[in-house]
Amino acid sequence: MKTVLFNKIALIGIGLIGSSIARDIKALGLANEVIISSRSRETLRRAEQLKLGHTYVTSATEAVVDADLTIVSVPVGASETIAKQISETLKPGSIVTDVGSTKASVISQMLPHIPADVHFIPGHPLAGTEKSGPDAGFEGLFKGRWCILTPVEGTDPDALSKLKVFWWALGSKVDEMDPEHHDKVLAIVSHLPHIIAYNIVGTADDLETVTESEVIKYSASGFRDFTRLAASDPTMWRDVCLHNKDAILEMLARFSEDLAYLQRAIRWGEGDKLFELFTRTRAIRHSIIEAGQDVNVPDFGRHAFDPKAPKA
Amino acid sequence: MKTVLFNKIALIGIGLIGSSIARDIKALGLANEVIISSRSRETLRRAEQLKLGHTYVTSATEAVVDADLTIVSVPVGASETIAKQISETLKPGSIVTDVGSTKASVISQMLPHIPADVHFIPGHPLAGTEKSGPDAGFEGLFKGRWCILTPVEGTDPDALSKLKVFWWALGSKVDEMDPEHHDKVLAIVSHLPHIIAYNIVGTADDLETVTESEVIKYSASGFRDFTRLAASDPTMWRDVCLHNKDAILEMLARFSEDLAYLQRAIRWGEGDKLFELFTRTRAIRHSIIEAGQDVNVPDFGRHAFDPKAPKA
Repeated sequence: MKTVLFNKIALIGIGLIGSSIARDIKALGLANEVIISSRSRETLRRAEQLKLGHTYVTSATEAVVDADLTIVSVPVGASETIAKQISETLKPGSIVTDVGSTKASVISQMLPHIPADVHFIPGHPLAGTEKSGPDAGFEGLFKGRWCILTPVEGTDPDALSKLKVFWWALGSKVDEMDPEHHDKVLAIVSHLPHIIAYNIVGTADDLETVTESEVIKYSASGFRDFTRLAASDPTMWRDVCLHNKDAILEMLARFSEDLAYLQRAIRWGEGDKLFELFTRTRAIRHSIIEAGQDVNVPDFGRHAFDPKAPKA
Repeated sequence: MKTVLFNKIALIGIGLIGSSIARDIKALGLANEVIISSRSRETLRRAEQLKLGHTYVTSATEAVVDADLTIVSVPVGASETIAKQISETLKPGSIVTDVGSTKASVISQMLPHIPADVHFIPGHPLAGTEKSGPDAGFEGLFKGRWCILTPVEGTDPDALSKLKVFWWALGSKVDEMDPEHHDKVLAIVSHLPHIIAYNIVGTADDLETVTESEVIKYSASGFRDFTRLAASDPTMWRDVCLHNKDAILEMLARFSEDLAYLQRAIRWGEGDKLFELFTRTRAIRHSIIEAGQDVNVPDFGRHAFDPKAPKA
């Protein structure tokens, strides 16, 4: 049995996240009509080939006409442009949300342009992979994942409930959070890890004493775990860095301080300090597995996917 | 058909690596007799329960008597102690090898104590998981993985061939490398990644503004990829840091420089610099996948192991 939650849904942006939402809406029958907008004609054509919606337009202004729910899934740096484009055609009483990885910046970019009779509720589904584009999305991406909503002051409780129900329908668990706190939490659990991953892969790429082919050949020793994150969408991550600057710089400063301490312990042969840290971090891995946030199979269960490797 | 390569093999240390070797020797019938030594009675008892060998002794001195091949699989900091213990009982003409992650240090610790009529050939199988102890090992761990041998000057070619054949039998690909070069290569592909992973997990653990439970709850956003490496054996990694100090400090210095550059680009809003790096690193991921060094499934194929998640 299908439950229509919104008569018409407009999806602005149809990359990994947008196209996964589209697939879920279709599979679950959550809307009578889905209109998809992308400023890239190529992406739009691909979305049409994949039958992700009913109508396809390059204009966001046009897409939101009569839409009861508008979901903006673009790099966070494009939020203001989109808000300006849709501000005059948004349907009174409708809901506008987004999926951006930074929330304070998205709010300051979009809120001033959203009419008072439209419910703007910023959101962030914590889901995704290192792949990007409409082909990378898949049905069920949000199942069992968190979606954090960061409602602004005076948000209409009914609109908030409707948006929650939408994410529940996609299988997400929904949390509410203050936008500034969201940005701090994400800076440590997501932004810093990506920046560090990009950085170490860059460092390895620049070495003169070790060749790139050696790095690739022997990458299974640890390095490759970083390359997954470092293969994420460059535009998205550039925008995250620029739009969550303060929280990221704070986390980077702490990380660098800690690394300097570790570096000093290595230089001076302080084995006890190293052992203390290396023991403490092990406990966090166990907590993550206990919380069901990762799989407890060695090596992420890579063996199971490697046709040359034995089953463990 | 089983091929006995060595009449008697002595395994000194029976953790993840040692016990995986033991399982392969048994499964492939590579020896008539396997003697296992561990200074921990508990570990030794567990090895016996798992039927990993034929004889079990706490004394390394005793274990190597009459052994044609001795494999030392202990944290690299214990190499000298073991070398001293076995130096007088090693069988003339026999082969001694190790599996340590650093090679120059192991050579300087062990070589002076190995009699001239014994063939000492240092080695390093690039295989393992974040788990440790005799229960963590499994048959086939080395299949399709690299094993790097770093023979010292004057190594007997026949002994070297015999050791190569042993690793081939376990399914490994064998490379030869200069010990100092090995240590540089491993510093970037393995040691730095582990240190960075330990460090970021430590940084997250210390935050006041974001709680540990928030870090764990939302770890799937990137953070958890680091926790696998940061759950590795603390003793082993303390020893690696202390015994590959120079190469590690060099890589750490480069990494920190690069991170400072990135931090500055974030502070000054230099999006083009960020975009350039984030694009360059993506190419390396592709090379790693093309080289068959990782699986090209989103999110390491974690979905397939998560009973709550859909099949992609």
